[in-house]
Amino acid sequence: MATGTLEIVFPERNVKCSIFFGEYLRKSLPISRLHEASSIAIISDDNVSKLYGRRLRDDLSHTHKTHLVTIRHGERSKTLDTASRIAKRLSELGLDRNSVILAVGGGVIGDMAGFVASIFKRGIRYFQLPTTLLAQVDSSIGGKCAVDTSWGKNQLGTFYQPEGIFIDLSVLDSLPSREVVNGVAEIVKSGIIAERTMFEDIERSSDLFEVNRLKGFVPRTVAIKAGVVQADEKEANVRKILNYGHTVGHAIESSSNYRLSHGKCVILGMLCEGWIARKLGIFDESDYLRQSNVLERIRSSHKIVTPVDPKIILSFAALDKKNVSGSIRMSLPEKLGVMSPGDNGSYAIPISKDIFLDSLLCLNKQKV
Amino acid sequence: MATGTLEIVFPERNVKCSIFFGEYLRKSLPISRLHEASSIAIISDDNVSKLYGRRLRDDLSHTHKTHLVTIRHGERSKTLDTASRIAKRLSELGLDRNSVILAVGGGVIGDMAGFVASIFKRGIRYFQLPTTLLAQVDSSIGGKCAVDTSWGKNQLGTFYQPEGIFIDLSVLDSLPSREVVNGVAEIVKSGIIAERTMFEDIERSSDLFEVNRLKGFVPRTVAIKAGVVQADEKEANVRKILNYGHTVGHAIESSSNYRLSHGKCVILGMLCEGWIARKLGIFDESDYLRQSNVLERIRSSHKIVTPVDPKIILSFAALDKKNVSGSIRMSLPEKLGVMSPGDNGSYAIPISKDIFLDSLLCLNKQKV
Repeated sequence: MATGTLEIVFPERNVKCSIFFGEYLRKSLPISRLHEASSIAIISDDNVSKLYGRRLRDDLSHTHKTHLVTIRHGERSKTLDTASRIAKRLSELGLDRNSVILAVGGGVIGDMAGFVASIFKRGIRYFQLPTTLLAQVDSSIGGKCAVDTSWGKNQLGTFYQPEGIFIDLSVLDSLPSREVVNGVAEIVKSGIIAERTMFEDIERSSDLFEVNRLKGFVPRTVAIKAGVVQADEKEANVRKILNYGHTVGHAIESSSNYRLSHGKCVILGMLCEGWIARKLGIFDESDYLRQSNVLERIRSSHKIVTPVDPKIILSFAALDKKNVSGSIRMSLPEKLGVMSPGDNGSYAIPISKDIFLDSLLCLNKQKV
Repeated sequence: MATGTLEIVFPERNVKCSIFFGEYLRKSLPISRLHEASSIAIISDDNVSKLYGRRLRDDLSHTHKTHLVTIRHGERSKTLDTASRIAKRLSELGLDRNSVILAVGGGVIGDMAGFVASIFKRGIRYFQLPTTLLAQVDSSIGGKCAVDTSWGKNQLGTFYQPEGIFIDLSVLDSLPSREVVNGVAEIVKSGIIAERTMFEDIERSSDLFEVNRLKGFVPRTVAIKAGVVQADEKEANVRKILNYGHTVGHAIESSSNYRLSHGKCVILGMLCEGWIARKLGIFDESDYLRQSNVLERIRSSHKIVTPVDPKIILSFAALDKKNVSGSIRMSLPEKLGVMSPGDNGSYAIPISKDIFLDSLLCLNKQKV
């Protein structure tokens, strides 16, 4: 079991986010981290609440006034309306500016709880206890909070750092494989964008989805993300590399009306964006083929199907937050472990609509 | 006519808000300040739009892709639902992360536009062009943005600094007196909390509401607010002095269902909070009487009536964002121009419910 602490520090703002590894769910939270809170609101969903939320509430109630606020599970809850209902409940429960929020759940809960924390009485402290692989390696880290809207995913939100993130790898022992693939996509992405040796370890893994193997990759992936976020919190430049596979991936996800899981969409997205990078002469050919092999292995083992109409996917990509003056931008790899800074160091390379559409066709071929 | 520039600087975050004084409405905006914008969205209300919004849009259209987004005037528009509808419209208009928002209007527009800017694609740049006295001396400055909710005023929001604030004193030539009293309350407050000489100039004014006299007080009030905000952006301590009169004032405003204007409520709020400060032995007696004289003069000249049931007012005060663990906190004056830091330097003094209720009774007396 990994233990220890990682820190993301923004010294110029006197802001620090500590990432703790330990057994928080079966044992207990290091409550000294929360001890100045006037009260605690655990925000969770109906599924996770039964597994962990109630027990944590009972545990924390020994030392703090603790409330459990539960929303319906799933991406469809990630709306401004849910945020408003949670905030109303927190107000009824008497939370004040010295209260803290503890998000217990996956990415939807982390985003919702973080967003509510960022706007409740103009901002209160919050902590994350991610209970999915995806939330542990990606969404709980970095302070991005958002809600989905009728016109796209994550269109309204804030950058708001949690004060602490509690990572308990034991949650991985009971995750369904649909959840696991979401996290695996981000683990593979992290290798491609920032750590060649990790990509090679993934490439060599006969079964990437085996739980103990995954547990080994979590702290490495967390460390990569923490480093990138610390270098560029507000995504002015290098943080954009974390979006690799996500420009196409998010557009596929939106156009499937969220029926296709995030991880599967990112796997498809990396196949397309890697193809574009190769086509533009940015991605080294042999590295491109190695990436495709790993991604196609995951794709076939998980029967990831080709999605809907390319033109609809393109229309969703036109809403991507990295776009400038209507042109689609992507972060693209040069080599495994190294992303292209682009002409101006922005890590956002303009992509024509034609090549975007062509890349989607590559998904229809059996082999790239 | 005042000209020149004031700056609020947060060097640790590399954030700067410039406050420009000039003739922006009859002449034109210093567009060099906006020149890197990929497009501009002017956010205004139906009234202000006719007076200034359309002309500004036409003017800015010579150099930028410029849109005008109009909402219904009045505090009732300041909701999460309106924010969501504005954001949807901005998305339809193709605004991206390099676009800027220009708020043209009073406090409601400034708050709405700032809040939308803070959450649209996780934050874009914005500017303020305040068109009421209240917005010029108070709400446009300091980066506080919020919406009202069913459970209280300004309950959801962010701290998000505008990049620039354009103050054009010519708007004061055509403001109705109901609007003027809102700003006058903040001017008087600024003297009480931070500048004794300004309070004395107010005290000596035979007609405080005369337009040219008011124009002289605007830059002084702006400078006071700018200095306080720069010292404590997130209201950890000294910024709380700006809330003088507002703990009671906001509660009266909410309990009147916003029928009583903000300025009138703050005048009543300062009468009550001054009374509490005197009762607790914090406020010097002769200074307290001088404050009461000035406030009662305004109260009688504007026929500010005694509001609704004290217990209902108290129930709204229980939601105040400065409260800690259910106890009401206030910033209170020691002398004219000097606020009490309280025991712990928090500028938030705990107030019992009994003394809060007693202070409201003082409003029923003809003379304090």
